[in-house]
Amino acid sequence: MKLATLKDGSRDGQLAVVARDLKTAHIADGIAPTLQAALDDWAFVAPQLAFLYDELNAGRARRSFEFDPGRCMAPLPRAYQWADGSAYVNHVELVRKARGAGMPASFWEEPLMYQGGSDDFLGPQDDIVLAREEWGIDFEAEVAVVTGDVPMGATPDEAYRQIRLLTLVNDVSLRNLIPDELAKGFGFLQSKPATSFAPVAVTPDELGDAWKGGKVHLPLRSIWNGRPVGQPDAGVDMVFNFPQLIAHLAKTRNVRAGSIVGSGTVSNKDASKGYSCIAEQRCLETIEHGSAVTQFMRFGDTIRIEMLDEQGKSLFGAIEQKVARLEADAS
Amino acid sequence: MKLATLKDGSRDGQLAVVARDLKTAHIADGIAPTLQAALDDWAFVAPQLAFLYDELNAGRARRSFEFDPGRCMAPLPRAYQWADGSAYVNHVELVRKARGAGMPASFWEEPLMYQGGSDDFLGPQDDIVLAREEWGIDFEAEVAVVTGDVPMGATPDEAYRQIRLLTLVNDVSLRNLIPDELAKGFGFLQSKPATSFAPVAVTPDELGDAWKGGKVHLPLRSIWNGRPVGQPDAGVDMVFNFPQLIAHLAKTRNVRAGSIVGSGTVSNKDASKGYSCIAEQRCLETIEHGSAVTQFMRFGDTIRIEMLDEQGKSLFGAIEQKVARLEADAS
Repeated sequence: MKLATLKDGSRDGQLAVVARDLKTAHIADGIAPTLQAALDDWAFVAPQLAFLYDELNAGRARRSFEFDPGRCMAPLPRAYQWADGSAYVNHVELVRKARGAGMPASFWEEPLMYQGGSDDFLGPQDDIVLAREEWGIDFEAEVAVVTGDVPMGATPDEAYRQIRLLTLVNDVSLRNLIPDELAKGFGFLQSKPATSFAPVAVTPDELGDAWKGGKVHLPLRSIWNGRPVGQPDAGVDMVFNFPQLIAHLAKTRNVRAGSIVGSGTVSNKDASKGYSCIAEQRCLETIEHGSAVTQFMRFGDTIRIEMLDEQGKSLFGAIEQKVARLEADAS
Repeated sequence: MKLATLKDGSRDGQLAVVARDLKTAHIADGIAPTLQAALDDWAFVAPQLAFLYDELNAGRARRSFEFDPGRCMAPLPRAYQWADGSAYVNHVELVRKARGAGMPASFWEEPLMYQGGSDDFLGPQDDIVLAREEWGIDFEAEVAVVTGDVPMGATPDEAYRQIRLLTLVNDVSLRNLIPDELAKGFGFLQSKPATSFAPVAVTPDELGDAWKGGKVHLPLRSIWNGRPVGQPDAGVDMVFNFPQLIAHLAKTRNVRAGSIVGSGTVSNKDASKGYSCIAEQRCLETIEHGSAVTQFMRFGDTIRIEMLDEQGKSLFGAIEQKVARLEADAS
């Protein structure tokens, strides 16, 4: 089943079921007012949503309407947790290599993960509004899961069973703020502004055989200013799968329903697959030529992130954003 | 006004207004179902809550009942953001000195801040449940504020006007997990388990003259296993006030209503004021004697954190917790 949250002027939007082909949708507020409310009581709510989804796909839903991704908020417009892993360790190794740093062996054995802001997510077509280009604006294309309740100390197998939904993420990063921030030792804060999400979140069964071993085995496409720059396979070179990432998060705490766990920037060792963030391209350039040529994003730049199934159909809809300058009165 | 959230079996509990003397309370669900809902629409909801608060204090509220802090969840049982500063830089300097590290000058000029898990807060009398004593279980007594909407790029003055509530926090830390985690560069994750909160959150006017310059000028008391161990003044040696902490958080993002921003462990340079976390005492011992004597918390240990006004009355009620072992079946 595919779920979206529509803009209605409220902070949490309105829950809608979206047809498999992303062409029609149906308001689901008779079942649950918001996606968080559905996740809070999933065992009771999900079957009702699934019934509506079947009706919608069969063309029998009474009040269906054309689905417009431009009306979408993030599936969870705000969430109680957003923890982003760095499961494509190749990406981490490249970044470190470009600055002459080695790779601690532990990075291959235990996930890197940071906690991001989750109070103000962006919808798939919302502008990325920032005050300064000099901050080094970058996109990061990722896959993310939304969990149910995962008890403290859960194993990866237990965590696997609590994966409720999958979606795509643009984990916008401010590259030039990162070095100073990480040097302070407390992790990212200002260098990770609001995160953006695909129009719909889908249950794992929607992925069919592409959902295997806790990974999504499909290419993730990034198109920057209309130019395809990356299509790495999200199922390749993912060193820690989603159940392992969730179990890492749950080691010393309960992880509650509606928590979002990200894969980190999708990256393949095969450089011909391109890149899911500009920083990686710059690292490759630095390693090869001694310095980076590709510049970070400018105001007006666009980024499109999408994943197609094996029949070429969009699974989650596309993230399609423009970078915009913060109005002076608020900057 | 003083607000609490009562356990009712739901994830978000039930909003209640609590009398100034913390003796009686009144359910406020006719005004707003939850504290988050109140914060989402504060300008409309707060005056109604204030009216009920006045009635309750005057003994005129019709359905008041005895206030029992043991029935409280955290004022926000889950929140969309929990960002903890480290405003008592003295504490940071001590910790670094104990391990022979110097203090970057920038630490006095720009706040340290990390993002914590906010999906599963503990109430004031909930057990601190953890799997292993060897993780180095420590309390951290702090003051925290709850914000309204703060736009990206807000100044400290603008942030000041969005401080809705104040409360106390026990930012439980797992000291022996911190070194490896910080060495990975992404900040705290497993080393910061669920955070605990005082029974009530209060509007700034409740503090009278003690709320001045964006700081709380009162001692914060920590009592460990029945023994008073700290009473540093939260208004002394706070290098960054709450408006500055919030503005730091809002530099590259909107901060939305219900965000919680912490002060970091309250710490005075005057060592006679004692300590608000065991790590600090251990640092002092290490600096003085070459090694730490005081051990971290054991299963069964208790911690009480409270702030009294100048008349000796509890402002927020007490955090009173016990450390407990996670049941084997889930560990």
